[in-house]
Amino acid sequence: MPAIMEQPISGPLAGLMVLEIGHYVAAPFCTRLLADLGAEVTKIEPLSGDPVRKWGEQFEGESLWWSTHGRNKKSVAINLRARGAADLLLALVKRHDVVVENFRPGHLAALGLSDDAMRAANPGLIISHISGYGQDGPYRDRPAFGVIGEAIGGLRYLTNHPPGSYDLPPVRVGVSIGDSLAGLYAAFGIVAALWERDGKGIYAGRTVDVALSEAVLSMMEGMLTDYGKLGKIRQPSGSRIPTAAPSSAYLSADGKWILIAANSDPLFERLARLMGVPDLPQDPRFADNRSRLDNVDALDTIIGKWTRTLSAGELLEQLEAAEIPSTRAYTAADCAADPQFLHRRMVQKVNDPLLGDVLHVGVVPRIPENPGAIRWTGPSVGQHTEEVLTSSGISRDQIDCFRAKGIISC
Amino acid sequence: MPAIMEQPISGPLAGLMVLEIGHYVAAPFCTRLLADLGAEVTKIEPLSGDPVRKWGEQFEGESLWWSTHGRNKKSVAINLRARGAADLLLALVKRHDVVVENFRPGHLAALGLSDDAMRAANPGLIISHISGYGQDGPYRDRPAFGVIGEAIGGLRYLTNHPPGSYDLPPVRVGVSIGDSLAGLYAAFGIVAALWERDGKGIYAGRTVDVALSEAVLSMMEGMLTDYGKLGKIRQPSGSRIPTAAPSSAYLSADGKWILIAANSDPLFERLARLMGVPDLPQDPRFADNRSRLDNVDALDTIIGKWTRTLSAGELLEQLEAAEIPSTRAYTAADCAADPQFLHRRMVQKVNDPLLGDVLHVGVVPRIPENPGAIRWTGPSVGQHTEEVLTSSGISRDQIDCFRAKGIISC
Repeated sequence: MPAIMEQPISGPLAGLMVLEIGHYVAAPFCTRLLADLGAEVTKIEPLSGDPVRKWGEQFEGESLWWSTHGRNKKSVAINLRARGAADLLLALVKRHDVVVENFRPGHLAALGLSDDAMRAANPGLIISHISGYGQDGPYRDRPAFGVIGEAIGGLRYLTNHPPGSYDLPPVRVGVSIGDSLAGLYAAFGIVAALWERDGKGIYAGRTVDVALSEAVLSMMEGMLTDYGKLGKIRQPSGSRIPTAAPSSAYLSADGKWILIAANSDPLFERLARLMGVPDLPQDPRFADNRSRLDNVDALDTIIGKWTRTLSAGELLEQLEAAEIPSTRAYTAADCAADPQFLHRRMVQKVNDPLLGDVLHVGVVPRIPENPGAIRWTGPSVGQHTEEVLTSSGISRDQIDCFRAKGIISC
Repeated sequence: MPAIMEQPISGPLAGLMVLEIGHYVAAPFCTRLLADLGAEVTKIEPLSGDPVRKWGEQFEGESLWWSTHGRNKKSVAINLRARGAADLLLALVKRHDVVVENFRPGHLAALGLSDDAMRAANPGLIISHISGYGQDGPYRDRPAFGVIGEAIGGLRYLTNHPPGSYDLPPVRVGVSIGDSLAGLYAAFGIVAALWERDGKGIYAGRTVDVALSEAVLSMMEGMLTDYGKLGKIRQPSGSRIPTAAPSSAYLSADGKWILIAANSDPLFERLARLMGVPDLPQDPRFADNRSRLDNVDALDTIIGKWTRTLSAGELLEQLEAAEIPSTRAYTAADCAADPQFLHRRMVQKVNDPLLGDVLHVGVVPRIPENPGAIRWTGPSVGQHTEEVLTSSGISRDQIDCFRAKGIISC
């Protein structure tokens, strides 16, 4: 076992027993968050492994994302379609506080793992279902694709240049944001239900029904309210923010995008001085935020001409000296080298027995009195099958029997 | 009082006492999530109100976003800079389980409300600090601007068309995603700490230190690990997803962007038949996912030519009949009319005493056995000052005294 496994379990969720019957992004992201804060997460995956292990970049046949996505979890490989598998699962459910799953609504019930069956085994069980559109309603049975759910939640339309400017398709946020948001909402709802159950002592099972599209919609600020009252349809604003100026990304002489947020009167005055046009804030086009918004094209043209005269390094040095909020659009390399992330252990080098040294993102949120930790990296498929079954009180004979039936692997 | 206030408090967090000393987006979003699940949230705001009340669209001088952003909360208006204000705050802290704040690190301590002072008043207090970069480290004192934190977290760089394609600036996700993510992580961390305190009975104060940049970085999947092991810098992929094809946004004959996710062999075969080119999957350029990714420009050109022959309505009807995941990029109007959102009460008409009928997003996550609720809409500034002070055991004489000193308004 690598050194990182020797740490004692820390974090506020130490002692919490979580069973993940999930795949891809949303449920595993939810359980990563729980495990990062100390929960003991057991992931049930098919004998062939969660397909997400084949996604993205690989190193010598091993998934790099998985090292993070699967960290701090135990892997138990079970063929859920085999006869008798449901009984094994229900035996595990008895020992857990929480089940998190993200199959299509009804899939687990068809395998003998309905909410009722699981609660018969464990009345206080918290069950979180994560799906594209929720556990009921007309879209319930539609397949959940992240990009579809993000678009239905309203996020995709707004992630674009303004209508009529370039007529390009709306951009995908560079990660599976809808799945991860759903996972984060599920983690929040699960611990809220646990506080009710264990903190207030209302011992009853609860269901946390999270839809990807709803997790996205929940982030959309005043979009619905503006529309309902004013009939106003919120529009994308490209690299700008719609309510204040100047705030955008500007090109440097060496072709880097630099974000500058000088969207207050004092900040704009400092920027004007720095650009060598100290009288600009007296120009009636730019005298206050309202005027600057009305003339934002002209304003951004002036700023962009200036930024193109300096390298990214020069720009950032000058902007920082003038205390104007600014940054490069960080790439992976920038994130990995950032002194603040390194100081806060948000970029950690950890040893993965399959990959060697790798970089992981740290634990969010930070709880200094009892911090979460990276205890181990993503396990191989079924690495903990015997251990978990044995510690669940399943006998050697029973384990052999499950193996003979093809429920667990040989 | 409007009818919606008459509902009994429901949700798993009913009984939880939360004090928000926050402004703008991150802390108020965190407390909205807590309040939606039943927590009793008291928001401390300056006598002039949280500046966020002036953001975005207004109706007869009243903020529309605020109706949602401030819902289910009580507003207590206090001039925190006035002499004696800290004593009043500490009296409130005694009665609360949680404090959530998002001022610059050190600001509250300078006002006499350090963590130590608050824990002296209430040893089991959970304190969540939300900031741009965290409570320590070299960037601690930098001003927190959402767009800067999102860029430092790595999200902005990836939200763009691929390098060399259009040379446009990376697009801002259409909402303050970094602030909201930080608020969501804080809500998760707070409830996790509460479970430890009240569920496991480890009665000690905890600090939940959330940085906007870190909340974003935590969502970046394998970005850091890929870079650390392979030196590979993840790149933006425009409207596509980088690992599977076809999945993108395509233009309809009537100029709408339609998302089509046909990125599996069976889905692609169905799409090819629908487009009238059933042999396309036999074309070696498109025979499997790897080939389709290698020839994605040619593939998307073929699909885009087809989509431009049909209206959005025709396309979606045909795609749905063929069971190919697809959708419009929903605008506010689409979200408001969506049958699934309406079925799941994710779009609700509520009565706001300041605005009349308005649309609100529903409560996420859904917990059917004990659901959260919209109990009332965003309050006016200081609407609950007297009520909260009185229920905190502060006498009429003391209240008059606070008023005479300008700590609370007349």
